[in-house]
Amino acid sequence: MEKEMNYTFDKVRVVMVNTTEPGNIGAAARAMKNMNLSTLYLVSPKTHPSAVATARASGADDILTNAVVCDTLEEALADVHLVIGASARQRNVKWRQMDVVGACGEIQKTMAVEGQEVAVVFGTENSGLSNEELDLCQILMTIPGNPNYFSLNVASAIQVFAYQHYVYSTTTEFEKSTNEIASNIELEGFYAHLAQVLEHIDYFEEKRPKALLMRRMRRFFGRAEPEKEEVAIFRGILRNIKPFKKD
Amino acid sequence: MEKEMNYTFDKVRVVMVNTTEPGNIGAAARAMKNMNLSTLYLVSPKTHPSAVATARASGADDILTNAVVCDTLEEALADVHLVIGASARQRNVKWRQMDVVGACGEIQKTMAVEGQEVAVVFGTENSGLSNEELDLCQILMTIPGNPNYFSLNVASAIQVFAYQHYVYSTTTEFEKSTNEIASNIELEGFYAHLAQVLEHIDYFEEKRPKALLMRRMRRFFGRAEPEKEEVAIFRGILRNIKPFKKD
Repeated sequence: MEKEMNYTFDKVRVVMVNTTEPGNIGAAARAMKNMNLSTLYLVSPKTHPSAVATARASGADDILTNAVVCDTLEEALADVHLVIGASARQRNVKWRQMDVVGACGEIQKTMAVEGQEVAVVFGTENSGLSNEELDLCQILMTIPGNPNYFSLNVASAIQVFAYQHYVYSTTTEFEKSTNEIASNIELEGFYAHLAQVLEHIDYFEEKRPKALLMRRMRRFFGRAEPEKEEVAIFRGILRNIKPFKKD
Repeated sequence: MEKEMNYTFDKVRVVMVNTTEPGNIGAAARAMKNMNLSTLYLVSPKTHPSAVATARASGADDILTNAVVCDTLEEALADVHLVIGASARQRNVKWRQMDVVGACGEIQKTMAVEGQEVAVVFGTENSGLSNEELDLCQILMTIPGNPNYFSLNVASAIQVFAYQHYVYSTTTEFEKSTNEIASNIELEGFYAHLAQVLEHIDYFEEKRPKALLMRRMRRFFGRAEPEKEEVAIFRGILRNIKPFKKD
């Protein structure tokens, strides 16, 4: 299913700050590539590059190879027009806060202007972003979830953002099935045939009045919106019931 | 941020089939707990329980401890009213397909009836769910993403679903329904009965192979989400076809 994206995703960079586990860097690359993101910045990673990260990246190692390593967060944010900091929970009201959908809306607005870039910043495994790091962000993006347990792995947080960003920025219209729906005439023909066969097998009786049962059949099949081919299958079945005459 | 949930999340079970890496089971538990899901079923996991899974669960080890281990997928789906299979990509049109948001809408509808349960099934790391496993699902849930690289880790797929499910069910209006949907066991009983009767009337033949036709029947009836009463009506019809023996 090819979806049209509203803008070039390589202008949306993911920034990982002081990541300690190289496996998380690899998992982040994989999460990103699955959702069409490709630009990764690493601020003072403990270990990079590493075989562990490459293994976890599982074919997304081009993102690791092209990752930009910086000494400071400021460096990683140079030339960026919007900086969003990810946080596991809401913080004090110092920052402008929104959930992932809201943040994606802001990204879209920023990307609407040619040449602009966005950074989404994820903190270290143990404590997330520091207040000083958040001071460099214009928006604090909170990821909704269990209020009694919030311990999202950093690569999982990137996965959630990347997924929501992909869904938000692509048309949400789902590819229509090409199977043709049965016409009203075909459906009526089927109902008539069905009623006839049900008579034939003595299905209708006092406790199962024809009018009521046929109404329920119409309701059921109407809800399923049968395709032409499906109606043909059901009629084939009905035709096969016929030969077994009672007498 | 405390949000009100529309229904009890413990009635939405995550089913992992033939998981080979215990680390993925732990990561799945963590992903679930972050998004308030708690019910995990493991179908023939390669290694469980394991220290690796517990370490990766990072405080979500209660979900691992309470995980139900089953030998077969059928066992894991008993008593469930809606079965959703996760797939990395769209498949042939045999199954009813929708994206994660659409699947969450179906879950919400099913959960609107008191006492109903839902299963969301995730396949093995290398190849996902088999066609035979998908035959047990009413809906194929596809996770949108990069059409040129789709290699979502199974725990990441669960993270995406769990996030979307949390967001959907905390932000979408809930509507209670009164008609009870057929359970998975009832549906399976109906399909078995249907196949038996179709054999009986010599419906299957070379041009109408049983496996294909039964898959189409599952797709059709799955889409219609039959109510208990409707399944009872269809079984009544099937019973009436029986007396007309060929010889």
